[in-house]
Amino acid sequence: MPPADRILKGDRLALARLITAVENDSDEGRKSLDELFPFTGKGHIIGITGPSGAGKSTLVNSLVKAILANDPHVALGIIAVDPTSPFTGGALLGDRVRMRDISADERVFVRSMATRGALGGLTQTVPAVIQLMDAAGLDPILVETVGAGQAEVEIARVAHTTIVMEAPGLGDDVQAIKAGILEIADILVVNKADRPGADGVIQALQAMLELGFPHQNVDDTNPQDYWIPPIFATVATEEKGIRELVDGIHRHRDWILRNGDWQRKDSLRVQAWLEALYAGKMRSQWQAVKQSGIYPQLVASMLERRISPFQALKVIEEADKGISA
Amino acid sequence: MPPADRILKGDRLALARLITAVENDSDEGRKSLDELFPFTGKGHIIGITGPSGAGKSTLVNSLVKAILANDPHVALGIIAVDPTSPFTGGALLGDRVRMRDISADERVFVRSMATRGALGGLTQTVPAVIQLMDAAGLDPILVETVGAGQAEVEIARVAHTTIVMEAPGLGDDVQAIKAGILEIADILVVNKADRPGADGVIQALQAMLELGFPHQNVDDTNPQDYWIPPIFATVATEEKGIRELVDGIHRHRDWILRNGDWQRKDSLRVQAWLEALYAGKMRSQWQAVKQSGIYPQLVASMLERRISPFQALKVIEEADKGISA
Repeated sequence: MPPADRILKGDRLALARLITAVENDSDEGRKSLDELFPFTGKGHIIGITGPSGAGKSTLVNSLVKAILANDPHVALGIIAVDPTSPFTGGALLGDRVRMRDISADERVFVRSMATRGALGGLTQTVPAVIQLMDAAGLDPILVETVGAGQAEVEIARVAHTTIVMEAPGLGDDVQAIKAGILEIADILVVNKADRPGADGVIQALQAMLELGFPHQNVDDTNPQDYWIPPIFATVATEEKGIRELVDGIHRHRDWILRNGDWQRKDSLRVQAWLEALYAGKMRSQWQAVKQSGIYPQLVASMLERRISPFQALKVIEEADKGISA
Repeated sequence: MPPADRILKGDRLALARLITAVENDSDEGRKSLDELFPFTGKGHIIGITGPSGAGKSTLVNSLVKAILANDPHVALGIIAVDPTSPFTGGALLGDRVRMRDISADERVFVRSMATRGALGGLTQTVPAVIQLMDAAGLDPILVETVGAGQAEVEIARVAHTTIVMEAPGLGDDVQAIKAGILEIADILVVNKADRPGADGVIQALQAMLELGFPHQNVDDTNPQDYWIPPIFATVATEEKGIRELVDGIHRHRDWILRNGDWQRKDSLRVQAWLEALYAGKMRSQWQAVKQSGIYPQLVASMLERRISPFQALKVIEEADKGISA
């Protein structure tokens, strides 16, 4: 049976193998993705991001346990993305240890990915892996990544519901909360809420919401015609505040299904993916330029300061036109 | 007088203005870069990277003070790059405060840049700004950036001498030292060397060097035919170990001038820059695709799961060929 059919029948081993094929961008991977694409778009994709040390893995662990306890028939996926390391090829050992008690459950499918600092890594491979999990019937699909640079913006482009975590005691505390957080957060979580400084973090987020939504009552936790990111205080290690967070996630899912944002976010995701594929194609073209005969001459001319990089680019463009014509 | 001429005459205000023009990728910026390119390639470019909290700004401050004390006729440049925030547009207020005592010195030209998570931000704009400073006669040029994801690899592509900093007490300590550090470090600095745990960090780096250079005596601090990154213990706040570090930087400069690496690193830098310009051109092409009539139809077809993103890419490629032909 072809891999795509096996995945549709719920074969987890076939899923794991095809994810590897997709990560390697193999022909089999691309073919199966094409075959499976019509069966996607059903699962609720939940992104979880925040600074290193906020307790993301622990929160995911508690969240998943709560979801499993609520619904015996659930089948869910977890993708742990490490965009910070260009060096390690999928370690995340600490995370795996922390997730041990849930990853043994057969209703849970966990995958760790190191995007190794690859440009577009998160937008190109992660949506593909999400799609495979989605076709396999996993719902929800949790995507966890550290909030480093571009990654936190990219996660908001692939998720239906983006949870941004903060915690007290992460060095700069309140100052570290970025002004752009509201552009990506659907739900805010202050973890380690039993630690000193947690109230300060909550207040800082609250103040930011009031600045971001000046004409609305930010204490109205269930408005009918707009969504203000609710703030949840959690102690993930003790599973405190998790039930409320699960409720908040469900409310957000219902809200975006009702107001059309579910489709809009689906649209953003496929567009981000298409853009990443285009960028990948462009990188291949650049490799072709580098292997062409003209390239060493251009580099030598630049080193002798006879032509500038801008002028070298023009030469490459002219050569490209010659090839296309 | 055109901006390029004023910069060659040492006009600092013209330099500051032209950097802004280059950051905005204006026509004037590109024109002046072309004019100034023949006058570049002289300054020693020193990259300084390391995790948040290692004390990079303080080290740069001490380093610059030592360089200024050594040479009354020096004119040097500092570029402080913040690749972590896609949101703020050039804040780095804390760094500016820390550098206050040196930035008042007229022999020092400081520039802060936020690359705002832009793809290729570090490789595209930073080399351009380095080039302007280089043409302005600034030497050395220090480029400081936090070691986050891609940034630390990119810094090694633009610098002649890359200094990688570590410090005790940064959470994961020894475990956080990445295996790939030797690929980019020419010099290792363990700052905050008076704090508990500093010896452990030094030993971990030492062990890594022994693994990385199995056939050489890593205690030989001045070998004739290979370079092993020396480790310097510093307390930047008290200017301890800084003179030794300055000596180490000079030794590395002499070494790469002698063995040809100076030219090789210059070559890497112009190639990285050319690649970033190419990538920028490709991003413009993608914008053109997005604004074309075909694009909304493709997105709609993907959302209805009638075509996959791979199939959509093929349609775009065919349309591109049609335009080129």
